[in-house]
Amino acid sequence: MKKLVVGLVQHKAGESMEANTDKNMEGIREAARRGAGLVVMPELHRSRYFCQSEDARFFDWAEAVPGPSTERFGRLAKDMGAVLVISLFEKRATGLYHNTAVVLDRTGEVAGTYRKMHIPDDPQYYEKYYFAPGDSQFRPIATSVGKLGVMVCWDQWYPEPARLSALHGADVLVYPSAIGWEPADEAGEKERQIDSWVTVQRGHAIANGIPVMAANRVGFEPNPLGGSEGIDFWGSSFVAGCQGEIISRAASDREEIVMAELDLGASERVRRVWPFLRDRRIDAYTDLVRRYGGQ
Amino acid sequence: MKKLVVGLVQHKAGESMEANTDKNMEGIREAARRGAGLVVMPELHRSRYFCQSEDARFFDWAEAVPGPSTERFGRLAKDMGAVLVISLFEKRATGLYHNTAVVLDRTGEVAGTYRKMHIPDDPQYYEKYYFAPGDSQFRPIATSVGKLGVMVCWDQWYPEPARLSALHGADVLVYPSAIGWEPADEAGEKERQIDSWVTVQRGHAIANGIPVMAANRVGFEPNPLGGSEGIDFWGSSFVAGCQGEIISRAASDREEIVMAELDLGASERVRRVWPFLRDRRIDAYTDLVRRYGGQ
Repeated sequence: MKKLVVGLVQHKAGESMEANTDKNMEGIREAARRGAGLVVMPELHRSRYFCQSEDARFFDWAEAVPGPSTERFGRLAKDMGAVLVISLFEKRATGLYHNTAVVLDRTGEVAGTYRKMHIPDDPQYYEKYYFAPGDSQFRPIATSVGKLGVMVCWDQWYPEPARLSALHGADVLVYPSAIGWEPADEAGEKERQIDSWVTVQRGHAIANGIPVMAANRVGFEPNPLGGSEGIDFWGSSFVAGCQGEIISRAASDREEIVMAELDLGASERVRRVWPFLRDRRIDAYTDLVRRYGGQ
Repeated sequence: MKKLVVGLVQHKAGESMEANTDKNMEGIREAARRGAGLVVMPELHRSRYFCQSEDARFFDWAEAVPGPSTERFGRLAKDMGAVLVISLFEKRATGLYHNTAVVLDRTGEVAGTYRKMHIPDDPQYYEKYYFAPGDSQFRPIATSVGKLGVMVCWDQWYPEPARLSALHGADVLVYPSAIGWEPADEAGEKERQIDSWVTVQRGHAIANGIPVMAANRVGFEPNPLGGSEGIDFWGSSFVAGCQGEIISRAASDREEIVMAELDLGASERVRRVWPFLRDRRIDAYTDLVRRYGGQ
């Protein structure tokens, strides 16, 4: 049975990007030491989640891709012999920024990038201000451990990109994330939210017969400009197999390195027994490319 | 808070279609007496699940729609003042059969029909032999209790029809089902299968912000022609709310009338907080209408 050990780094982010990055790298080293051939980081892991407010000063935090971070994490990928999925605030051009995942192969080279396609804009998640919608499409990134269907956070609520990734050959779905609770929400609502976040992604694994990995940040971060209560990031990073079964899941309240062993033959077996791809009614799906109804 | 009480009739099917139908109707009466304004039946509830084998004799069991069953269940719908979703083996023309769900409004009239679009064909589920693929598209059926996004069984594994139903205005997703275990499967595999069945449908509720109702048959049915072990239908009919939360779920081993109260204002609230429909990247979904890759 061919196996791939994978790791998710679930970290808190402090105010110092340099200290965060050092901690990120130490988390990656630990996952790799424990055998991970693929390590996934949370969304925008080098900084606090600045999208809680709209402020042009935060554009100073953006960087070129490829650039200093891909070089630094690339060296680490090579040192550890592991494929890394990192998440950067990309400055593509003056006035043009993206929320970008980068896949570094174990050679240290950039295997591919993915610019977040579905951009949220909700109280405390003002991402439409910071990030232009990606023009990456949903094309898995080929690496030495398989084809990674890399998406980012808000994408994870959508069945379409997961399906498109699978139809383009993804072996696994990968979601760097930054999602949490409003501290004032009542307990039942918090439970429904976190459960729906896990469940909808498990659904993508099931519908497509491939595993899913979601790495989330954890811990409370105040709104840097005030004006709201801040976000209590709910952690719960997880790996699910290609029947949606949870293989590993982190706690919601502490830093963790989540390790899991993926059975690389499972998709072949599961898709034979549950041949969903065979029966798609592509003649009847046209309205999926419309906003609503038949218009 | 506007509420709708709904019911699912989880029944075993015996050899007599007449006795099954009587029991179906008694189940509907009970659900309606307990307050249900909408009652959903399992797939092909009037008979045993004959698709375990391919045999032309079973075409004798098919009937016209509208026809004797829509008339009989229509009268019941009117008597009980409830909307019914029933599931029939339809003879549309000589040599042309469908697996058809019929929605009967509380007036007793046919509100609409849905001919199963995704047809499975797997050992013990030889449906491609019996049923022509439906040409219904995915258009919710308007009733006095709301617009019902009616699909049937195998459809439930696909995110596309659920999404299309939502984009065409469905207030709730409804799945008559007939699914079970191979008796010889080991316990872990059985658990993964039933959990994936519930989870992928909860995922549809979450991704679309509307409730889902799945009515399944229950109990062991031998293969009528022998040659296989039969199917142990796993019941577990359930109702989930528009955050995917389970409201009611039946056991996997006995007949039950599953009752649930749907909060008809929940979708409005949930879709405001989780505005997935706003951010769909319809410019990037074109390959969803292709079989695989970009071809």
